[in-house]
Amino acid sequence: MPEKAKNVAIVGAGLVGAGWAVVFARAGHKVKVYDASEATRLGLQAHLGASLEALNRHGLVTETPAAINTRIQIVETLPQAVADADYIQESVFEQLELKQAVSAEIEQAMASHAVVGSSTSGFSGSSFMANLTRRTQFLVVHPVNPPQVIPVVEIVPTPWTNPQVVGEVRSFMQAIGQVPVVLNKEIDGFILNRLQGALLDEAWKLFEEGYATAADIDATVSEGLGLRWAFMGPFETIDLNAPRGIEDYAQRFSGMYQRLASLRHEAGAWPKETIDRATAECRSTLPVEGLTARRQWRDERLMALIAHKKQQPKG
Amino acid sequence: MPEKAKNVAIVGAGLVGAGWAVVFARAGHKVKVYDASEATRLGLQAHLGASLEALNRHGLVTETPAAINTRIQIVETLPQAVADADYIQESVFEQLELKQAVSAEIEQAMASHAVVGSSTSGFSGSSFMANLTRRTQFLVVHPVNPPQVIPVVEIVPTPWTNPQVVGEVRSFMQAIGQVPVVLNKEIDGFILNRLQGALLDEAWKLFEEGYATAADIDATVSEGLGLRWAFMGPFETIDLNAPRGIEDYAQRFSGMYQRLASLRHEAGAWPKETIDRATAECRSTLPVEGLTARRQWRDERLMALIAHKKQQPKG
Repeated sequence: MPEKAKNVAIVGAGLVGAGWAVVFARAGHKVKVYDASEATRLGLQAHLGASLEALNRHGLVTETPAAINTRIQIVETLPQAVADADYIQESVFEQLELKQAVSAEIEQAMASHAVVGSSTSGFSGSSFMANLTRRTQFLVVHPVNPPQVIPVVEIVPTPWTNPQVVGEVRSFMQAIGQVPVVLNKEIDGFILNRLQGALLDEAWKLFEEGYATAADIDATVSEGLGLRWAFMGPFETIDLNAPRGIEDYAQRFSGMYQRLASLRHEAGAWPKETIDRATAECRSTLPVEGLTARRQWRDERLMALIAHKKQQPKG
Repeated sequence: MPEKAKNVAIVGAGLVGAGWAVVFARAGHKVKVYDASEATRLGLQAHLGASLEALNRHGLVTETPAAINTRIQIVETLPQAVADADYIQESVFEQLELKQAVSAEIEQAMASHAVVGSSTSGFSGSSFMANLTRRTQFLVVHPVNPPQVIPVVEIVPTPWTNPQVVGEVRSFMQAIGQVPVVLNKEIDGFILNRLQGALLDEAWKLFEEGYATAADIDATVSEGLGLRWAFMGPFETIDLNAPRGIEDYAQRFSGMYQRLASLRHEAGAWPKETIDRATAECRSTLPVEGLTARRQWRDERLMALIAHKKQQPKG
C-alpha cells in the first residue's frame, strides 16, 4: 500500500459499506463503490447524500457534502471497483461462503500491492482468508455501525497477515480520522463484542431474576456507568478511581470483584420467557412502529456527542 | 417522610457526603451536615464552594453558588444534624461496625417519621440494618461519585424496608433531579458494580492473554461501545439494533453471545503479574504525579457531558 493511499474500493454497499465510502471520501480519498445488488446501487446516491447532510448539520465535515460526494463513484462490476485500488474494504453480507467467494474475486482483480480489509464481525479472518494466494495482504478491519459516526475500528490480522500490512492499515485508519485498535491474535467476537457480551449477559441475568426492570438496568448505564465510558475506557476509569492508580485500585477492589464474579451465573442462552418479558417491557414504552424514529434520534444523538467530544480538551 | 421533604441531614461528609449536601441544597432543601472528623468539618466549606463553582461554570445550577450554600449548615454533633430531619443520608466510611454503630446513633436521635438512606456500596443494607428498631425506615441509597454530577442512584430495600418508604425515596430522588433505579431485592454489588465487574473482568482477561494493550481495550470503549452507553442502556441499545426490536435481536444474536460466553474464562482474582503489566502501561503515559490533574480533567469532562445531555432532545 503506498504511503498515502489514494484509491479506495468498497465491495458491498449496505449500511456498513456505504458508511465506509463516506469515511474514506471525507478524508480526501477517491472511492469506487460496488454492490452486487442493482437496487442497492440505485439507492446509494440518495443514501450517501443523506449521510453527508447529517454529518454536515452536526459540523462533522470540513467540506460541502457535494464536494465530498464527487470523490465517490458507483461502479457496476467488482473488477471496476478494485482494479486500481490501493485499499479495498469488503462489507458483503455475513455469510461464510459469500465472504470466501468475494475475497477470491477481489484477489483475482486487485493490484499486486493492494490491501484488503473485511468488515466482518461474526467470522474470524482465517475462516475465509486461509486459501487465498495473497492472504498476507488480507485482514479484518471491523467498524462499528455507523462507521462515519463511531470512530473505533478493530484491526485483526490472521496468522498469515504480513505484520507490515497491519501497521500500514493502523496508520491509514488513524490518518482518515478513525480510531484503530489492534488485536495481536484472533479471538471470537474481537474486543468490542466480547465486552458488550459480558455486560449484556450480566444485564439479562439481573433482569431474568427480577432484580430490576429493563428500564432501570438501562438507566444504571445511561445515567451512571456509561457517562465515563463515553470518553474513558475501563482501565483508565479504575486508574483514576484510587489515590495511587490502577495498582492501588486492584489492591482495594479486586477482592470485591472476585466475590461478584463468583456469584455470577454461568452464561447460557437467553431464555425465551425472559426475552418475552423484556420485549413486553420495551414495547410498552416504544411500539414497534416507533423504532425507526428512535433510531434516527439515536444517530442524531451520536453525532451530537461526537461533535461535543471534539470540542473538549484532551487533558 | 412528608410529601415535600424540607430538612435533610448528611452524616459523614467525605467526598460522597459532601456531594450529597450539594445535591439536596441545589434542589432547594435545607441541609445539616455532620462529620465525626473536625478536620473534615473545617475543610468542608471550601470544598462545597469549589463544587458549586464548578457546577456553575458548566451551567448546572440555576442559582448562584452562594445562594445554594446558605441552605447548608455544618453542625458539630450527630443529633444536631438529624433531630429535625425528614430524610437522612448516611455516608460514613465503608466499615461494617461503624455503619452499625452510626445507624443505631441515627435511629436514637431521629424524628419518628424520618427515612434513612445509606450510601454504602460494599455492604448489603441488611448486614447492618437488621437489628434496628425502626429498620422499616432504613434502606440503601447508593450514589455514584461525584453525586452532584452523576445522576444515577441505586435504591435497595432490605427485607424489612417498608415498600411505601421505597416509593417515597424514589419520588424524592426524582424530585431533586437524580435518576433513581430500584432493586427489588438485595444482591451483592447491586446493579452498577455488577455490570462494571462483568465488563472489567472481560477486559482484564483480554489484556492478560495478550490480545491487545490496555490503551486499545480502553479505546474500544471510549471511541465505540461507550458512546451509545452515555445515553442508552444495554437493552435499548439492542432494541434498536435489529429491525423488529429486542426480540428480533435476541433471535439473531443470542447464539453468538452464547458462543462468546462459553469461551469466557472463569473469573478469578486479577493476577499480580497482569496488574503489574497494566500498571507499567498506564504509568508510561501518565505518571502517578499526573493522576490528580487527570481526575480534574475527568470531572470537567463529566460536567460538560451532563450539560451537553441536558441540551439534547429526549426523543
